[in-house]
Amino acid sequence: MFSKRIDKNQIELGHDFAPKFNNQGLIPCITVDADSGEVLMFAWMDKVALKMTIETNKATYFSRSRGKIWVKGESSGREQIVEKILVDCDQDVIQLRVKMTREGACHNGYRSCFYRSVDSDDDTSLVYEINDRSFDPDNVY
Amino acid sequence: MFSKRIDKNQIELGHDFAPKFNNQGLIPCITVDADSGEVLMFAWMDKVALKMTIETNKATYFSRSRGKIWVKGESSGREQIVEKILVDCDQDVIQLRVKMTREGACHNGYRSCFYRSVDSDDDTSLVYEINDRSFDPDNVY
Repeated sequence: MFSKRIDKNQIELGHDFAPKFNNQGLIPCITVDADSGEVLMFAWMDKVALKMTIETNKATYFSRSRGKIWVKGESSGREQIVEKILVDCDQDVIQLRVKMTREGACHNGYRSCFYRSVDSDDDTSLVYEINDRSFDPDNVY
Repeated sequence: MFSKRIDKNQIELGHDFAPKFNNQGLIPCITVDADSGEVLMFAWMDKVALKMTIETNKATYFSRSRGKIWVKGESSGREQIVEKILVDCDQDVIQLRVKMTREGACHNGYRSCFYRSVDSDDDTSLVYEINDRSFDPDNVY
């Protein structure tokens, strides 16, 4: 399914999809909201997860902690329907543009996993950027 | 400078900045445009690069291929001024919101490194999402 990685010029500027998996067989994936472009989460994919994502249009990742494929939403009911799959210049990072069937990409209940930022007055502290949860994790997991 | 990672609840929901570096001493970084939110690039940081980014407000990464710190824009003249630093739920991914001093985050001259997507009619092929270069890399590097 995926092209072989032969030539730097072909990889970076060509039209063959030749994703590069690292020495653990994984590729990083940035998932963003298809409408707003907001970064929702970051996860990893193995070859099977990427193939499943392409074939089913449902974001599917590889959980390093559980050592297995993970269809987003299988336990939370919040699936991510894939509108577009992008790849970066050297094809070693994937970006998914998705629509969530129900809001809340983070297991802590927030719309995005990036709900905190480094305090500009105190770089040892975090401040909340998103204050309201989209769901209560105690009711979902 | 960074807090110790002690307690899962503190890491995920607290106010201490306790970034987690992997077993190679690196943390993934997603860099987005501060105004549009568009994902511009993906890179890695070591502890020094993250500290330099916080202290100088200029996006600073660690190049795995060159094995050294890399201040974005030092060769292209396209610096990334950091407006905000976000961290994900388990604090093992950084997101930078930046303003570029001159457009073009990708070494191939494109605004974003994610200038191609998987063709929806042929999943072995890529189509260009961004057609116009922000700069000609032959004139810059």
